[in-house]
Amino acid sequence: MTGDPNFMSSLARGIAVIRAFSDQQRTLTISQISHKTGIPRAAVRRCLYSLKQLGYADSEAHNFRLTPKVLTLGYSYLSSTPLAVSAQPCLNNISRILHESCSLAVMDSNEVLYVSRSAQSRIMSVALNVGSRLPAYCTSLGRVILAHMSEEALAQYFNTVTLRAYTDKTVVSQAKLMEIFATIRQNGYVIIEEELEIGLRSMAVPVRGASGKVTAALNVSAQATRISSKRMREDFLAILQGGAQELSAMLP
Amino acid sequence: MTGDPNFMSSLARGIAVIRAFSDQQRTLTISQISHKTGIPRAAVRRCLYSLKQLGYADSEAHNFRLTPKVLTLGYSYLSSTPLAVSAQPCLNNISRILHESCSLAVMDSNEVLYVSRSAQSRIMSVALNVGSRLPAYCTSLGRVILAHMSEEALAQYFNTVTLRAYTDKTVVSQAKLMEIFATIRQNGYVIIEEELEIGLRSMAVPVRGASGKVTAALNVSAQATRISSKRMREDFLAILQGGAQELSAMLP
Repeated sequence: MTGDPNFMSSLARGIAVIRAFSDQQRTLTISQISHKTGIPRAAVRRCLYSLKQLGYADSEAHNFRLTPKVLTLGYSYLSSTPLAVSAQPCLNNISRILHESCSLAVMDSNEVLYVSRSAQSRIMSVALNVGSRLPAYCTSLGRVILAHMSEEALAQYFNTVTLRAYTDKTVVSQAKLMEIFATIRQNGYVIIEEELEIGLRSMAVPVRGASGKVTAALNVSAQATRISSKRMREDFLAILQGGAQELSAMLP
Repeated sequence: MTGDPNFMSSLARGIAVIRAFSDQQRTLTISQISHKTGIPRAAVRRCLYSLKQLGYADSEAHNFRLTPKVLTLGYSYLSSTPLAVSAQPCLNNISRILHESCSLAVMDSNEVLYVSRSAQSRIMSVALNVGSRLPAYCTSLGRVILAHMSEEALAQYFNTVTLRAYTDKTVVSQAKLMEIFATIRQNGYVIIEEELEIGLRSMAVPVRGASGKVTAALNVSAQATRISSKRMREDFLAILQGGAQELSAMLP
């Protein structure tokens, strides 16, 4: 996008600096951010200076941190999107009935992006929140969405993604994944066992917009030792599908 | 900040365009955003063009909307802040015990900003979420934080805030608010009844950092007709104070 006179590279850099803080300790120095983003130190310094003037960053000595005001950016999306606004009560309800964490996600650049989440307190090591990202091919949310993509979109996905094994159960063969996708389209749901993290089992169902196109996925995750896949199919599936129907009605 | 060579006005404008979508219908046109932000149409167009290139906005005909990717910005704060990461299980727990919504907030430019929230599904008309803002002087969260501010910070607050009555019960007299703050410091909590919205009662307690300074507030809100203030004091206060203690331990 260099050379495009309409593209504001300083806006791109400012956003990249904000994102450098993801999953980090609280504070970062200018050189740490420069190293992480590939943006020259002088430009990082100007970004942080501007973000600080605007109230989105703060510093102590040479250590910078984001301020809670950054949350108002995510809120701009949440409060302007009917699905995000209305999903929370629906997810809370499912989570309360099943006593497990429930999440709604969409695809964003080869990853699943959590749009809404109702977490139960027995959490696994995966600390997930609204805005979290996970690989699509080895998560139940991602696999349900991938299974319903067009052939072209799926080809594009496999051309650009790196399939890596998170556990010794992670499926990393494209051919095997294509078979799994066919089964998902047939069954209308997926259960994934310990492919992202040992001890984690999760079930997802597609969420369709008014056009019938799958635009999101809804899942429930639980400790594999506590909830069997049989139990998921018998007790969780119908409730999850009911939730997906309810959410569908909110989609354009 | 005009004329400051280190200040990136294009970053400021890009962020203002993102924030223009808050509490709006899903889509906005260039002229609507220009009208709302005071940024010239040509500059708004460039911001939207750049945000679209970066994947944070999308358009259909002349209507622009934010994409879920905007959530990753808020996530940058959430995932880099120990308090925000750890607060959710604590709030979920309180919310589950009391069967009411529970929120954690900090001050940001004269308003309270929701950092974490665990909502029960019987919600009032106030649709609140992480990143939401509310006036400080007429909310329980805000009043607890204001009550513990330094004299200088409080003078600055009253110099810049406009006290307006949201209901006929809203206290808008500075002198009366100062009296209320003194009582809050004495009692260690506050109950607010229908000052923000008719039918809403809420109780808040301060959350202190390691230095003893009040840096956040924790509250529970309920329908005024269902939960009396006596019931709040007898059944809610101890649980809320326990939660505040737990959260304090996470603060620097």
